[in-house]
Amino acid sequence: MTRFVLGQNQYGKAENRVVKVTRDGDTHHIKDLNVSVALSGDMEEVHRSGSNANVLPTDTTKNTVFAFAKEHGIDSAEDFGIKLARHFVDDTAPIHRARIRIEEYSWERIETSKGGARFVGADEIAHSFVRKGQETRLAQITYDGHGIQVLSGFKDLTVLNTTNSEFWGFLKDKYTTLQEDYDRILATTVSTWWRHNWDGIDSHAPDWDRSYAGVRKHALQAFAETYSYSLQQTLFEMGVRVLNSRDEVDEIRFSMPNKHHFRSDLSPFGIENEAKDGAVYYAADRPYGLIEATILRDGAEQLIPVDMTNL
Amino acid sequence: MTRFVLGQNQYGKAENRVVKVTRDGDTHHIKDLNVSVALSGDMEEVHRSGSNANVLPTDTTKNTVFAFAKEHGIDSAEDFGIKLARHFVDDTAPIHRARIRIEEYSWERIETSKGGARFVGADEIAHSFVRKGQETRLAQITYDGHGIQVLSGFKDLTVLNTTNSEFWGFLKDKYTTLQEDYDRILATTVSTWWRHNWDGIDSHAPDWDRSYAGVRKHALQAFAETYSYSLQQTLFEMGVRVLNSRDEVDEIRFSMPNKHHFRSDLSPFGIENEAKDGAVYYAADRPYGLIEATILRDGAEQLIPVDMTNL
Amino acid sequence: MTRFVLGQNQYGKAENRVVKVTRDGDTHHIKDLNVSVALSGDMEEVHRSGSNANVLPTDTTKNTVFAFAKEHGIDSAEDFGIKLARHFVDDTAPIHRARIRIEEYSWERIETSKGGARFVGADEIAHSFVRKGQETRLAQITYDGHGIQVLSGFKDLTVLNTTNSEFWGFLKDKYTTLQEDYDRILATTVSTWWRHNWDGIDSHAPDWDRSYAGVRKHALQAFAETYSYSLQQTLFEMGVRVLNSRDEVDEIRFSMPNKHHFRSDLSPFGIENEAKDGAVYYAADRPYGLIEATILRDGAEQLIPVDMTNL
Amino acid sequence: MTRFVLGQNQYGKAENRVVKVTRDGDTHHIKDLNVSVALSGDMEEVHRSGSNANVLPTDTTKNTVFAFAKEHGIDSAEDFGIKLARHFVDDTAPIHRARIRIEEYSWERIETSKGGARFVGADEIAHSFVRKGQETRLAQITYDGHGIQVLSGFKDLTVLNTTNSEFWGFLKDKYTTLQEDYDRILATTVSTWWRHNWDGIDSHAPDWDRSYAGVRKHALQAFAETYSYSLQQTLFEMGVRVLNSRDEVDEIRFSMPNKHHFRSDLSPFGIENEAKDGAVYYAADRPYGLIEATILRDGAEQLIPVDMTNL
Repeated sequence: MTRFVLGQNQYGKAENRVVKVTRDGDTHHIKDLNVSVALSGDMEEVHRSGSNANVLPTDTTKNTVFAFAKEHGIDSAEDFGIKLARHFVDDTAPIHRARIRIEEYSWERIETSKGGARFVGADEIAHSFVRKGQETRLAQITYDGHGIQVLSGFKDLTVLNTTNSEFWGFLKDKYTTLQEDYDRILATTVSTWWRHNWDGIDSHAPDWDRSYAGVRKHALQAFAETYSYSLQQTLFEMGVRVLNSRDEVDEIRFSMPNKHHFRSDLSPFGIENEAKDGAVYYAADRPYGLIEATILRDGAEQLIPVDMTNL
Repeated sequence: MTRFVLGQNQYGKAENRVVKVTRDGDTHHIKDLNVSVALSGDMEEVHRSGSNANVLPTDTTKNTVFAFAKEHGIDSAEDFGIKLARHFVDDTAPIHRARIRIEEYSWERIETSKGGARFVGADEIAHSFVRKGQETRLAQITYDGHGIQVLSGFKDLTVLNTTNSEFWGFLKDKYTTLQEDYDRILATTVSTWWRHNWDGIDSHAPDWDRSYAGVRKHALQAFAETYSYSLQQTLFEMGVRVLNSRDEVDEIRFSMPNKHHFRSDLSPFGIENEAKDGAVYYAADRPYGLIEATILRDGAEQLIPVDMTNL
Repeated sequence: MTRFVLGQNQYGKAENRVVKVTRDGDTHHIKDLNVSVALSGDMEEVHRSGSNANVLPTDTTKNTVFAFAKEHGIDSAEDFGIKLARHFVDDTAPIHRARIRIEEYSWERIETSKGGARFVGADEIAHSFVRKGQETRLAQITYDGHGIQVLSGFKDLTVLNTTNSEFWGFLKDKYTTLQEDYDRILATTVSTWWRHNWDGIDSHAPDWDRSYAGVRKHALQAFAETYSYSLQQTLFEMGVRVLNSRDEVDEIRFSMPNKHHFRSDLSPFGIENEAKDGAVYYAADRPYGLIEATILRDGAEQLIPVDMTNL
Repeated sequence: MTRFVLGQNQYGKAENRVVKVTRDGDTHHIKDLNVSVALSGDMEEVHRSGSNANVLPTDTTKNTVFAFAKEHGIDSAEDFGIKLARHFVDDTAPIHRARIRIEEYSWERIETSKGGARFVGADEIAHSFVRKGQETRLAQITYDGHGIQVLSGFKDLTVLNTTNSEFWGFLKDKYTTLQEDYDRILATTVSTWWRHNWDGIDSHAPDWDRSYAGVRKHALQAFAETYSYSLQQTLFEMGVRVLNSRDEVDEIRFSMPNKHHFRSDLSPFGIENEAKDGAVYYAADRPYGLIEATILRDGAEQLIPVDMTNL
């Protein structure tokens, strides 16, 4: 059996659904996370003999997530992940590396009726929420005992331009039948990760929530404001805008399916269906174009894995 | 084979993903629907012998959906469904009944950068949208050649109160171990259908969009403002508020899973985790309580099928 | 508030994932169910005031499912559901009606290596299973204190004929563009429920597992052996075969999407793509034809709800 | 804009659902694939200016998939992917690298009734299939103009041992509450990729179907026959068995969630629920342990990306 080598390995409890409520008088706040822990270290024995002497149970990693949410609160997904990663590596001898992945779901307050408090003693309803349902925020924190790498991101944000998108002048071979299009819908569901240049050693960590809001805003604006000749161009412009506006980000990767909206062919019924008049489109499911790229600040190292944005 | 009877049957093209853009100068509007057609009529022969003489192909029903979107526009899901249902029954001899089911996805405009038009000739970006991602709006129109029944609804709207929910005083039997709770999270994902009392014959149809907005608002407010002793009570109050405020609605049915949020037991670690201090909760997936009920205006007939809100 | 009436209502714990192992020496057996409980009765008060005096907690219904699995074993999904339904109604005064819905997942044994027992004392591996992954078996038991209604069914069984399917001679209107096809793929994913004529009072219940196997076999054979001119004809033949071969079944309903496989148009590349030569097809997602019908034994009452097979 | 660098990028048409029928007289065969194409090359311009001069449209890559299925047939997913990858790189000047990912769905023949041919001229039904529904087979072919890398794999194969699994002797810290277990259910859903040592230059390619069947069989047997003290040990043994029995494989990676089955606590009802007597278990959804590792032949390079098996 010595002929076979144990390569990269990791283990932990995935998808811990932790919800933390904070009460500020009658005004409540909520953090809603899905936290996955992956630990690596001295794990040769458990793979070869089944000895668990170096294995902190995944059940313990789960308990730690919930206990830390209470003991330390959840300031942001990134901050919470950093605390967890440091703990697992610094406080557990056989663990040398921790990767914390977090999904965060957003909530907004429910607007209540004017003067509508139906129960005694409440002036307003500050404890009622509706799930926003738009993109899922992402964070990944990796710690190896020295530096920290923080990736942030989001997925499942669907955007659409009804015009200012063309596609023509492309390469043709014997299998090419596509017609050129001078006014098409451009739609995609954005998945993205970006890497902060903070290394965890310098004391001035970014303001994670402000950074997230900035990246999201600039990516959306670039999507809306780019007159597009290809989805690649739009994607690159989104990356450039983010890097231009957020100094704390060195690298960003996008995975963007081209969600095809084909104009219905209504000519058999004697009906014109031109984009300029406001057309009817068929929103197709599969197949879809899939455009993926990394954009880097000049001199930055490319570190976001290509396969992190698997669809 | 005459020993066997053909019972209720219907057929049609399901899930036609139709997107209609309307251009009002540089300002564009979008309607994004998923339309399913189900037709019934003189269909004994196609089932018994395979003769398709009475069968309008499902492909034709698909074509009709897209052609109607262009010819008539899409004022609202309900209005569009009514036009389709009338057409299939009134214009196709063997078809005696049509049921149109529609899902609608909401979009909101992307806010662009200040003075930020990057391309020539545009003052603002009025053609860029981000999918709202909250509830999916629903409509079902049924037409049998005489009256029309319009159901409206929505699904996948998740709401949560961090307090003002208790659960105690319940029935106990030998399998009861649940502890009473005087301050719990109450969370659910609302699925609902409501029935309009408009019969399609009277000329004054409701304003469907205003009606939808009103039902949604009152249901949400009732959820937020009810001090709850059971999810049933909250559900009933939601129905009462809707019926009280919307005269055009006679009946409403809710299907509401109790999305359990259990307080983590942190006592093994010497940590208190009380609701009053802002607790940490574990958001459970399965099993979940499931509460379903119909609320009716006095004297109204119960017509929404129990199984329409299957999870 | 007396202006508003409480209509049909039910509550209970949904999706209890119960797995029961039975050990017969070294040979183990497994039953893997997803059980949903819905109870109705004297529930006016809990909806109007929030009083839970008549409410057996959904947590108790969950406990009961797990306790019954141990106390009574799980002979079949139907048998287990009958025991649960009788218990909730007969033993709980305010409960007058119980509906138990069950999904069942099938497992098959893993074949082990010849003479390959690697651990001491075992001659064969009779405790290792791989999930079959084909259709999900379904059962619904309803009990109102008098009779019992048992529906059985399955979903997610995908079948496909590569020939012996035609579609022509259909009705045409101005929106019809479909070409006739004399050799097409016919594919569908079968969802079906059937109703047993056993009323729960007569002592001779069907052999549920044998009945299920028979219905499944005859439905599959009818799909394979019918030369089809429409999916309706195939569906009806499937129902007829089931009713002809299973005396204990009085009614069966199918919901069958027409999973379209379109022949690729390869003519732009000078390639013929005819069915007779073995063609290449594009398997489409949406839209899809959806064919639904009930077939009844002559004189039987139609009792399976149209909306039970919602996709 | 020169401050920003374009990093790794790729594009193509994803999820082409291609079904190929082969007719051998009355006996038909079926191949059912989901093919995703990702191309890289001289793509600086399309990202920076939107010039598509080097961009073979994703629509063309889709056409190519369908045309190749007809022109070359589909011998195996791997063989088909190799043909596509070579074509895109060798025949398209600006394309320097192609990655083809394929999912394959298995079908088995429907057994027909004895002597049951209902239509003229057929002795048996050799054109009727039911989808197997178990694991999805995977292949990834990467070609850069020189060598070829072939990864094969599968996902969604769920396995379960009802005994011969223990978990004890683990590391404990202040957050550890887990009890030791000497007879537990071990269940997982296997995701795996393995790498063939064939480089695409040597003419003797593996027999891909035989190789797949062998890896699957040995992985399953190792799962069944390992007396397990940890899921890591079982995973490693699965890898060792595969490498021991398949010389053409140099590296294999598994991602295996620990699908927890917790024994129900029935003690409040006076019911014992011990594993040795055949217990009742609650099958939990989230969180779950997640165990991932690569096993390598000694001296082999670790090349399968850690993130390829993302859940």
